[in-house]
Amino acid sequence: MVQVRVGICGLGTVGSGTLKVIQRNGVEIATRARAEIQVVQIAARRVNADCDTTGIAVTDDIFAVAANPDVDVVVELIGGIEPARTLVLTAIANGKHVVTANKALIAEHGNELFRAAEDAGVALAFDAAVAGAIPVIRSLREGLSANIVTGLAGIVNGTCNYILTEMRDHGRAYLDVLQEAQQLGYAEADPTFDVEGIDSAHKLTILASIAFGIPLQFESVYTEGITKLERIDVDFAEQLGFRVKMLGIAKSVEGGVEVRVHPTLVPEEVLLSKVDGVMNAVWINGNASGPTLFYGAGAGSLPTASAVVADIVEIARTMAVDGDMPTPHLGVDMADQKDTPVLPIGECQSAFYLRITAKDRPGVMLAIATVLSNKGVSIESMIQKEAQPGRDTVPIVLVTSRAKESLLNEAVREIEAIPEVQVPVTRIRVESLEH
Amino acid sequence: MVQVRVGICGLGTVGSGTLKVIQRNGVEIATRARAEIQVVQIAARRVNADCDTTGIAVTDDIFAVAANPDVDVVVELIGGIEPARTLVLTAIANGKHVVTANKALIAEHGNELFRAAEDAGVALAFDAAVAGAIPVIRSLREGLSANIVTGLAGIVNGTCNYILTEMRDHGRAYLDVLQEAQQLGYAEADPTFDVEGIDSAHKLTILASIAFGIPLQFESVYTEGITKLERIDVDFAEQLGFRVKMLGIAKSVEGGVEVRVHPTLVPEEVLLSKVDGVMNAVWINGNASGPTLFYGAGAGSLPTASAVVADIVEIARTMAVDGDMPTPHLGVDMADQKDTPVLPIGECQSAFYLRITAKDRPGVMLAIATVLSNKGVSIESMIQKEAQPGRDTVPIVLVTSRAKESLLNEAVREIEAIPEVQVPVTRIRVESLEH
Repeated sequence: MVQVRVGICGLGTVGSGTLKVIQRNGVEIATRARAEIQVVQIAARRVNADCDTTGIAVTDDIFAVAANPDVDVVVELIGGIEPARTLVLTAIANGKHVVTANKALIAEHGNELFRAAEDAGVALAFDAAVAGAIPVIRSLREGLSANIVTGLAGIVNGTCNYILTEMRDHGRAYLDVLQEAQQLGYAEADPTFDVEGIDSAHKLTILASIAFGIPLQFESVYTEGITKLERIDVDFAEQLGFRVKMLGIAKSVEGGVEVRVHPTLVPEEVLLSKVDGVMNAVWINGNASGPTLFYGAGAGSLPTASAVVADIVEIARTMAVDGDMPTPHLGVDMADQKDTPVLPIGECQSAFYLRITAKDRPGVMLAIATVLSNKGVSIESMIQKEAQPGRDTVPIVLVTSRAKESLLNEAVREIEAIPEVQVPVTRIRVESLEH
Repeated sequence: MVQVRVGICGLGTVGSGTLKVIQRNGVEIATRARAEIQVVQIAARRVNADCDTTGIAVTDDIFAVAANPDVDVVVELIGGIEPARTLVLTAIANGKHVVTANKALIAEHGNELFRAAEDAGVALAFDAAVAGAIPVIRSLREGLSANIVTGLAGIVNGTCNYILTEMRDHGRAYLDVLQEAQQLGYAEADPTFDVEGIDSAHKLTILASIAFGIPLQFESVYTEGITKLERIDVDFAEQLGFRVKMLGIAKSVEGGVEVRVHPTLVPEEVLLSKVDGVMNAVWINGNASGPTLFYGAGAGSLPTASAVVADIVEIARTMAVDGDMPTPHLGVDMADQKDTPVLPIGECQSAFYLRITAKDRPGVMLAIATVLSNKGVSIESMIQKEAQPGRDTVPIVLVTSRAKESLLNEAVREIEAIPEVQVPVTRIRVESLEH
């Protein structure tokens, strides 16, 4: 199997996440990449105790990684402009592929860096630079490649979205929420980059370049922060049917493109307005696709690492196949597929909604509860209506705890055997979509 | 420039959309693909008047396309199992790449077809087979390739979602909505495939295979339709804080995977529960990414064509680069970027939310309305509160029509010059995210 040797520069939040994802998911990743991803060197000022660096060379010199002949892919996760810019240029000059999560670097110096990468024939991958785990760069560049993009709008800064969500849901003032966000680690001690929209503008610069096929031009992005937003306006917006969101907006219009970041009222019936808390989402409209939306975690150790490692996988796939289609049809080659069994429906687990129509007699509810309890199934919520005049039956509606389907079916049969209960009992599965 | 020669089999809804997208967006697509995509042959029983087939050979024999030495990519859009299966196998045997939107074919015969494609070293691309315009196959296979997928849930049948949305929003019965959906063209004359969940099961089969690295196994998917769903249960679900959605669910659990299609109660606070009408969405949870969601049009001529042509672009990119990274960093090579100007903010257009604090005197509202009217700006909605006891001022809140920002700023300055108005007027942009 092809080996792809990775050097990681920076072992902070994203760097340590990247190491963990490669280590934890290594077996799956190897079959998908058709290559073994090996971290051979790490450059870091210090190594946290929760990082396992067994068998990995550790240095404090990032340029040693860029110069290491045993490294195929340099992963730049130190952030900021310098020395990150010089590191990336050096790695490219040395013929190495580069993966970065550095939005400021790409937005402000990407034109120089991509030109260098094109000239050297190496990849400079950056899906992690915009919206963390959401594969929005790939989706724009590949999934929507048949479209002329007419416009896009993104919630691409979790700090701003958290603050705005709290202001709305709990009627709190901007500064009050900001201070709490700082305590929770959602906002930096100096929150300027986030709340003044600079971070959003970096990401929007990158999205606009891909959407419209134009050079990166951070300096042309209009940027307005959320710092002056008053709670009363959030309330009035709500009364008018809108929610206030910090959006990065890019639109193709007569004579040019609009690229701007500012607090924005969005109609409450639009899906993007319902993206709350620290989550990110990007809405993209294409002239063939129509509206699309991509949602997920925009920051954090593992979510950002998810995108970093996906970029490494794509580079590895291209190195491994040498001219064929880099991505296996079903994610892995057919010979690498697993024989994990698909369970019969009786073995599947869900919560259940049950609607039981029963005669309005004492003891019926107790009988139903006894059946469920004997199966180890509990009642999570319930609606019981009074009998309507002239009707002898009442609907008893309840949601159960999660249970194996075969067990629940037994319970339903026993409930249907209660003399006061009409057959059949209505049964619909419930899924909470927890992580 | 490399030329990629395409033969389209089937010129129905998706086939004619595919032809239109290639023709309309051809210039953009060529720079992205680094190749010119040329439709050289079409096999169709008849050609609709709105399709421009100038310069394209038209035949009624699909196998002539699969045998044509001038065709590099065969696009199978005839649907159904046979002769589609034989067509795809023949094209593969002739060394051609294949693009298909045929979910039944992939779900039921994909194992055979992908094995043939792997052996022949050609691509069999199928992003259009699941959820139309949404690049969910790519996102699972590439964007989330670093993750172990723990579970996914999709609204992947627009007909079912339209019926369920109407039942909830308008308290209508299943059969009533189905008949209307048939009249609107959202449901087939024989709706069995949609409402019994077979179409969803085809798509779920494909998603589960990629998510878990297992063979396609349509026959193992548990499927239950929406035909027996009663309106009263939709109402009770709502009272309990849930919405009823037709979901395809695939989960990794102890001992195997669950793969099932059925009507499902989903908590109303979950984003997937808010996907309404004919739209599709797929929620995917990875062990690094956390929850993600991909939303868009799941069917229709141009949305499905968006995915078909994206697959053609990917094949063209790989043919064009011969071993390098197939996708240009920013979607197109830097030499192909455009010089479209980014407009200054004054030239940008939005609607505006204005909050004006003014003394509660007669004539103030008239003065404000006059300023806006003179600029050609109209008032779309307004909140005007009565003055509170002991306070001399009232807030006047309004949302304007769309206007050029410089013009609106002039209006705001004139409003601020009205003696009864306090400075400053609060101004927030409004975006409706229309297509």
